[in-house]
Amino acid sequence: MTTLAHCRALDAKDPLRAFKDQFNLPSGVIYLDGNSLGALPKSTSARVTQVVEHEWGKGLIRSWNAAGWFDLPQKVGNKIAKLIGASADEVVATDTTSINLYKVMSAALHIAASDSPHRKTIVSERSNFPTDLYIAEAMCQARGFRLQLVEEDEITASLTQDVAVLMLTHVNYRTGAMHDMAALTKAAHAQGILTVWDLAHSAGAVPVDLTAARADFAIGCGYKYLNGGPGAPAFVWVNSQHADRFWQPLAGWWGHESPFAFTSDYKPAAGIKRYLCGTQPIINMAALDCGLDVFLATQEKGGMDAVRAKSLALTDLFIALVQERCAGFGIGLATPLAHDKRGSQVCLTREHGAGAFAIVQALIARGVIGDFRAGDGKTHKDIMRFGFAPLYNGYEDVWHAVEHLRQVLVNEEWKRSEFNQKHAVT
Amino acid sequence: MTTLAHCRALDAKDPLRAFKDQFNLPSGVIYLDGNSLGALPKSTSARVTQVVEHEWGKGLIRSWNAAGWFDLPQKVGNKIAKLIGASADEVVATDTTSINLYKVMSAALHIAASDSPHRKTIVSERSNFPTDLYIAEAMCQARGFRLQLVEEDEITASLTQDVAVLMLTHVNYRTGAMHDMAALTKAAHAQGILTVWDLAHSAGAVPVDLTAARADFAIGCGYKYLNGGPGAPAFVWVNSQHADRFWQPLAGWWGHESPFAFTSDYKPAAGIKRYLCGTQPIINMAALDCGLDVFLATQEKGGMDAVRAKSLALTDLFIALVQERCAGFGIGLATPLAHDKRGSQVCLTREHGAGAFAIVQALIARGVIGDFRAGDGKTHKDIMRFGFAPLYNGYEDVWHAVEHLRQVLVNEEWKRSEFNQKHAVT
Repeated sequence: MTTLAHCRALDAKDPLRAFKDQFNLPSGVIYLDGNSLGALPKSTSARVTQVVEHEWGKGLIRSWNAAGWFDLPQKVGNKIAKLIGASADEVVATDTTSINLYKVMSAALHIAASDSPHRKTIVSERSNFPTDLYIAEAMCQARGFRLQLVEEDEITASLTQDVAVLMLTHVNYRTGAMHDMAALTKAAHAQGILTVWDLAHSAGAVPVDLTAARADFAIGCGYKYLNGGPGAPAFVWVNSQHADRFWQPLAGWWGHESPFAFTSDYKPAAGIKRYLCGTQPIINMAALDCGLDVFLATQEKGGMDAVRAKSLALTDLFIALVQERCAGFGIGLATPLAHDKRGSQVCLTREHGAGAFAIVQALIARGVIGDFRAGDGKTHKDIMRFGFAPLYNGYEDVWHAVEHLRQVLVNEEWKRSEFNQKHAVT
Repeated sequence: MTTLAHCRALDAKDPLRAFKDQFNLPSGVIYLDGNSLGALPKSTSARVTQVVEHEWGKGLIRSWNAAGWFDLPQKVGNKIAKLIGASADEVVATDTTSINLYKVMSAALHIAASDSPHRKTIVSERSNFPTDLYIAEAMCQARGFRLQLVEEDEITASLTQDVAVLMLTHVNYRTGAMHDMAALTKAAHAQGILTVWDLAHSAGAVPVDLTAARADFAIGCGYKYLNGGPGAPAFVWVNSQHADRFWQPLAGWWGHESPFAFTSDYKPAAGIKRYLCGTQPIINMAALDCGLDVFLATQEKGGMDAVRAKSLALTDLFIALVQERCAGFGIGLATPLAHDKRGSQVCLTREHGAGAFAIVQALIARGVIGDFRAGDGKTHKDIMRFGFAPLYNGYEDVWHAVEHLRQVLVNEEWKRSEFNQKHAVT
C-alpha cells in the first residue's frame, strides 16, 4: 500500500519541486484544475502593474515601440514554440483558440480545395471539444463540406479519399486520452489528408513535436497549462510549407506586410505573421509571457521531459491511491492506463453516474478543486476531472486529494443538498 | 487674438474639468493621441491587481461565477450601449474591431443574400480605415461580392440596386470628418441596402444614436476614447430585428445557448450573445470596465452632450490658435470646420507635405504627443493628427500645444536629422 511517507519522499527528490514556490496558490487549496485555468505565477502581478502604470500610463502610445508591444505576439510565440517542437518565428500568440481554429481550418480547406477539389469531408472525433466542432460545423455549412464525427477507434478507417482534413484535439478534454500525433499524421498524409491539431490540453502538459510529426496546422490555449491567466491569448502554428499559400480571411492590420503603411489593399506578411489580425490584449499578453518564463526556467531541470516524467508519476500515483483507498465506492477510471495514451489529467466516473457532480462540489468545499463534465447520457459518462500541473502540484497534494475524496465517499457528503445545486462551471 | 488667460478662463468654467484628476497622465506631456490609445484612469491599476491577485490567484477557476467573469462581456457591453444609443443587452464587448467587423459583415451579407440575392456589391470609402477594407476584401473574394470604393461625396450616388451593404467608419481616422449616420442610413434603406458602421473614432468621442438612426450593424473599439487600455476588447451591436436571423461563422462556446452544456452541436444564444466566440481576455476586459465607469460618471455633468460641447470647443480653439499663431508656415487644415461634420480630432497638413512627419516627431520630443499618418501621394496628403479627449484635455493644454508647434516651426526644429528617421508609429 502507498503511504503518505512515500508521497513525501517523492516530493523530497522531485527535481521540479522548487517551481511550486514560483506560484501564488491560496492556502488550504489543492488545485487540480490547471487544465482549465492555470495558477498565478508570482512574477505576473508586478509585470502587469508595470504594463499598466508604466508602459500604458507613462509611455502611452509610444509603448508600441518603446515597450515592444508590437513584437509581443511573436516574442511570446517563440517561447511557446520551444514547448511544441516548432521553430523560431513559426508561432504567434493571438486571439482565441476558436478564432485561430477558424483561421487554420480556412487555410486547410483552401489548400485542400486547390490540390484535391473532390475532397469534401472533415473528419473529427465525436468527443472533440465542442467549440472545435461548432467552428467546423459553421465552416462546412458555408463552404459545402461535411463534418464526419467518429469514435476514437474509427479514426484510421475513416481516412478515405474524400477526406480533406483530419481535425483532432491531441489530448481529449474529457478523458485525458492522448492521440499518437505522429502516427495519425502519417496515416492522414498517406491518404493525402491535411491535419489540424488542437493542443489546448497538450502545450505545457505533454511533450509535443510538431516538426517531427510533420503536422500541418496547430492551435492551442494560453490559459491552461501555460498559466497565462484568464482569457490569455491563444496561439497558432502553421507548417512553413503551407504558411505562405493562403491568407486567412481574418485579414487585419497586424497581419499586413507593412502594418503601419495604412495602404488600402491587403498584402499579407510572410510566414506566420499573416495569422495576426487586430490589436491584441497587451495586458493579458504580458501575463502569458510571465507564465511562459516559468516554463522556460525548467530547461535547467530537464525541461518538458522532466515535466512529463512528473506528470505521469503524479497521475499514476493518483490512480493507484484511488484504487487502493476508494475501492468499493463505484469509482471508475476514464483515462487510459497506458502512459503513451495519457495526457496530464485523470478522469473518474461513478457507477451509474450517481453523484459525480456532487462529489466534485463536495471536494471543492474541502479545498480540492477539480471539475465536472456532463456526459451525453449515452456513450459518454459524467466525468470527475482532475488536472495535474507538475510545476505546482506535488505528490503529497495527491495523497491529500485522494484522502478528501475518500472522506466525501465514506461520509456520503455528496448527498448533501448544497452539493447538488447545478450551476455553471467551466 | 486668443490669449492664454482666455484659455485658462475656459478651463475655470469647464464642467468636465475635474475629470482630468481621474487619469494618471505623465508630467510634462500634453497627450493628444487619445484617439489612438486613451489615457490610464486612476482606478484601473488597482482593479487589474484585484483581478490578477484575488480573482485569478485566489479564486482560480471559481471566479468564472464568483467574480462574474462570465457576465463581463455583457456587463461591459451594457455600459457601452449608453454611449451609442443602444438598448440594454444589445451590445457585447469582445474580440477585436477587425474580428467583430468580420462577424457583422458575415451577417449582413447573409441577410442580403437571403432577401436580395442579386445584390453583389459592398460600398465603402476609399479612405476608410485600411483594416476594414482588408476584411471586406477577403470576404468579397470568398463570397463572390465586389468591393466598390468611393470618395466621400460619391457615397449617396453609389447607393444603387446592386448594392448589398454600405460599410462606413462614422468618423474618418485620418481627417476626423464625420458622416451623418442617420441621413446615410436612411438613404441606404431607401434603396434596400443594409448599413454597417465602424464607431472606432466615435464611441466616447461624439454623440451616437444607433437606435434613432435605425442602423443595422455597428462595431467599435475599446482602447481609444473609451480608455480601456492597450488592446482592450472591441464591441459589437446588432439591430434587434437582425440579431436572431443568422449565426455568425465564428461560432464558439461563449456564443452558445448553453455554453456549459458542452453539447456537440451548436445552438446560438438569442440576441447579441451569439456574437461572442471564445474565451475573452479578462484582465483587459476589467480595465475597459474601469474606463467606462469614468464615462458613466459624466452623466451628472451633462454626459455625452457635455463631452461633445467641450470637444467642439477644444477643436475650435486648436484650429483658431493654429491659424492665429502659426500663420505663414504652410500649415493647412484637413478636418471640416462645420461642427456637424467634425469628430473629436484635428488634422493638419503641410504645404507640399514637407516635414509633416518630422514636425510630429519634434512635437513628441517637446512632450506634445500627436501622431502622423502618411498620405497616398495622390488624393490624400500626409497628416499631422491631434485627438482631443474632453475628459482629460483642457483649454490651457491646447494653448501650450499650439505654442510648441509654433516653436517647432519658428526654430525649424523639424529639420533636425533625429526627427526625420522614420520608424513604426501607430
